Amino acid sequence: MNSGSVRDTNLISEETAALVWADVQKIRAEAPLVHNITNYVVMNATANALLAIGASPVMAHAIEEVEEMVRHARALVLNIGTLSAAWVEAMVKAGRQARQRGIPVVLDPVGSGATEYRTATAHRLLEQVGPTIVRGNASEIRSLVRAGAGPKGVDSQHTPDEILGEAEALSRQWHCAVSVSGPVDIVVAGDAVVRVANGHAMMARVTGMGCTATAITGAFAAVNPSPLQAAAHAMAIMGLAGEIAVQRAQGPGTFFPHFLDALHGLDESHIARGLHMQGRG
Amino acid sequence: MNSGSVRDTNLISEETAALVWADVQKIRAEAPLVHNITNYVVMNATANALLAIGASPVMAHAIEEVEEMVRHARALVLNIGTLSAAWVEAMVKAGRQARQRGIPVVLDPVGSGATEYRTATAHRLLEQVGPTIVRGNASEIRSLVRAGAGPKGVDSQHTPDEILGEAEALSRQWHCAVSVSGPVDIVVAGDAVVRVANGHAMMARVTGMGCTATAITGAFAAVNPSPLQAAAHAMAIMGLAGEIAVQRAQGPGTFFPHFLDALHGLDESHIARGLHMQGRG
Amino acid sequence: MNSGSVRDTNLISEETAALVWADVQKIRAEAPLVHNITNYVVMNATANALLAIGASPVMAHAIEEVEEMVRHARALVLNIGTLSAAWVEAMVKAGRQARQRGIPVVLDPVGSGATEYRTATAHRLLEQVGPTIVRGNASEIRSLVRAGAGPKGVDSQHTPDEILGEAEALSRQWHCAVSVSGPVDIVVAGDAVVRVANGHAMMARVTGMGCTATAITGAFAAVNPSPLQAAAHAMAIMGLAGEIAVQRAQGPGTFFPHFLDALHGLDESHIARGLHMQGRG
Repeated sequence: MNSGSVRDTNLISEETAALVWADVQKIRAEAPLVHNITNYVVMNATANALLAIGASPVMAHAIEEVEEMVRHARALVLNIGTLSAAWVEAMVKAGRQARQRGIPVVLDPVGSGATEYRTATAHRLLEQVGPTIVRGNASEIRSLVRAGAGPKGVDSQHTPDEILGEAEALSRQWHCAVSVSGPVDIVVAGDAVVRVANGHAMMARVTGMGCTATAITGAFAAVNPSPLQAAAHAMAIMGLAGEIAVQRAQGPGTFFPHFLDALHGLDESHIARGLHMQGRG
Repeated sequence: MNSGSVRDTNLISEETAALVWADVQKIRAEAPLVHNITNYVVMNATANALLAIGASPVMAHAIEEVEEMVRHARALVLNIGTLSAAWVEAMVKAGRQARQRGIPVVLDPVGSGATEYRTATAHRLLEQVGPTIVRGNASEIRSLVRAGAGPKGVDSQHTPDEILGEAEALSRQWHCAVSVSGPVDIVVAGDAVVRVANGHAMMARVTGMGCTATAITGAFAAVNPSPLQAAAHAMAIMGLAGEIAVQRAQGPGTFFPHFLDALHGLDESHIARGLHMQGRG
Repeated sequence: MNSGSVRDTNLISEETAALVWADVQKIRAEAPLVHNITNYVVMNATANALLAIGASPVMAHAIEEVEEMVRHARALVLNIGTLSAAWVEAMVKAGRQARQRGIPVVLDPVGSGATEYRTATAHRLLEQVGPTIVRGNASEIRSLVRAGAGPKGVDSQHTPDEILGEAEALSRQWHCAVSVSGPVDIVVAGDAVVRVANGHAMMARVTGMGCTATAITGAFAAVNPSPLQAAAHAMAIMGLAGEIAVQRAQGPGTFFPHFLDALHGLDESHIARGLHMQGRG
């Protein structure tokens, strides 16, 4: 998510900044309900991030209620970070219901490639749900295309641009946008590629920033019908808020409270001045 | 929880402030064990809030141990925010054991009305446990009285005063105090009504502040035998700490650490100067 | 963890400080993967603490994947704070796999003694896994040696030195290092005893600081083959970071973000100037 060659030229038109800001305003005005079936580590952090940007989070995973809950929602976020059998069944059920109703589904295949169970579950969710957007780090995305290409843990061993071909293949195969986070994020949908060079290296020292990006992507998908734009705008806002927070923080612990404040306080001028986005978003 | 018409007059006697302060002192002196069977999103936050006010939190949900654990406790908090079948069984078992032992039980029917499963579970806990205090937002409380009256998610679409009649009906039917949070909180027990006008709108942008209010209500119920007073004093302390924290915070992210500091540092003068409580608490 | 008589004399040689610092440098250089099967309350906090010290945390508890995940790891942390049957099975499976592969296992018997289920589970993990290091408070450690000696909740009713004999017995019986936190921490391995007098009383008002100590012990065990040294160095770093954070914080809420910053920013001079360690670490 941080600076790179994308920053060398003036990359965005005023129009792109206006589109990002329009989405933020819509989220704040409409407070869309985002239903999360996510991991234990980040539940509090992602609920707070969704509230800070202006959305309404709900966490619900019981098989008895996920279909009914998701019908109230404007986006569904599925995250396999601390998966287990009962949760996976609920993800499938909620995901199918969401797709039937036209509610966008964002999948975060946390740790896919690290264990067979994670890789198989991520593939099952691709097949049985068909997410609108898949958002992960480069190693996770790669594991969805190439068998046996996974990371040792949940961190990435690749940069997004190294796996651009795989991201494009994944997008074409499953008809979804693919959002890959890294020093420069890439978002792919079919033939379109958007690069976002906002963010800061500190964000990799805070747990769940990737999962938070996924949740925020859900908020943008709730208000923007273009999966490519929703995913790219979410990464831009994550990066911009991170840049503001790093300036206020003394380390990774004080970073996160300031990050939430920055999401909450972000205005048009932050986007106009700070956005580093390349390609059609 | 924030300002309203209740603030227009000097609402409290010195006696009321002294009663609130006496409870805080008791919690700090006795560090009562509060057993929580609560949701994943708020476990860390509510444990920290209980520690900050001076209580001793314990989280335990296994069916094998909840009855034994609750016998060590001076209050039990049941919160259905991320309910599932095994957890509900544990809540019923712990709740019944608590009632048999005369240990107060506080129920937070998170999201009741949003799904049939939540509404049915909340009703089951009313019937099979019989909580001492029910604490929720207006939409949740309403769903316990009127079928089909629920919210879309876990946020409220009503103010406490709009559902005062329902809160009174719930209190009479189940012989419990009913604590409804909102811009002005109301606490009802039988014919008595207390209003608390402390707090700040920022608190609605932080996840789990309602659940934290429920946990803090457990701490007060552990030291004060009057469910009405315990519930009202808890809402007052939540609101006062929130007001202090808002002054120190730059947004919803920095708010929560300051909120815990405020709970920890709250003294007699904060209560005497800041309390906005109406009715007999 | 705070000051005590151990502070009255200059307790450490330059050599000891150099050993602690060498471990910190190794963790930062190698970013060892630490696999945690831990409780819901502290997952976010311990993941952030592991990242802040320089390690790579992963949380995974599904029976389907724990053996594969732990094979990628350089330490396994088992914590029974919110135990249930399925999680205990996963702990046993992961623990056995770790031991077969020579991966160190750190056990935190949270609340052992408070309920029969916790005590029995802690004993089962001692017998069926055989942890490298057991880290708990005095009451928990005592319950592993004496039946019926447990605490009412998860807090300790004893100081580490009061139960030194029990810690030594536990170490001899299970061939493990035993790390007991308190005003002065003690770490025992066979006949060796190390005392650490760093830390601050504020740390007891923040949830999961014991669990965080256990996770950090896992990071040190990943880079230091001596269980005694790993456990003692971890307690020293916890205490030193806590002392720095208390100076920056206004209460237990602002403490934790500053604690993470301090773990992240800790340098050689903090250790050389601040370490209070007695005995061979």
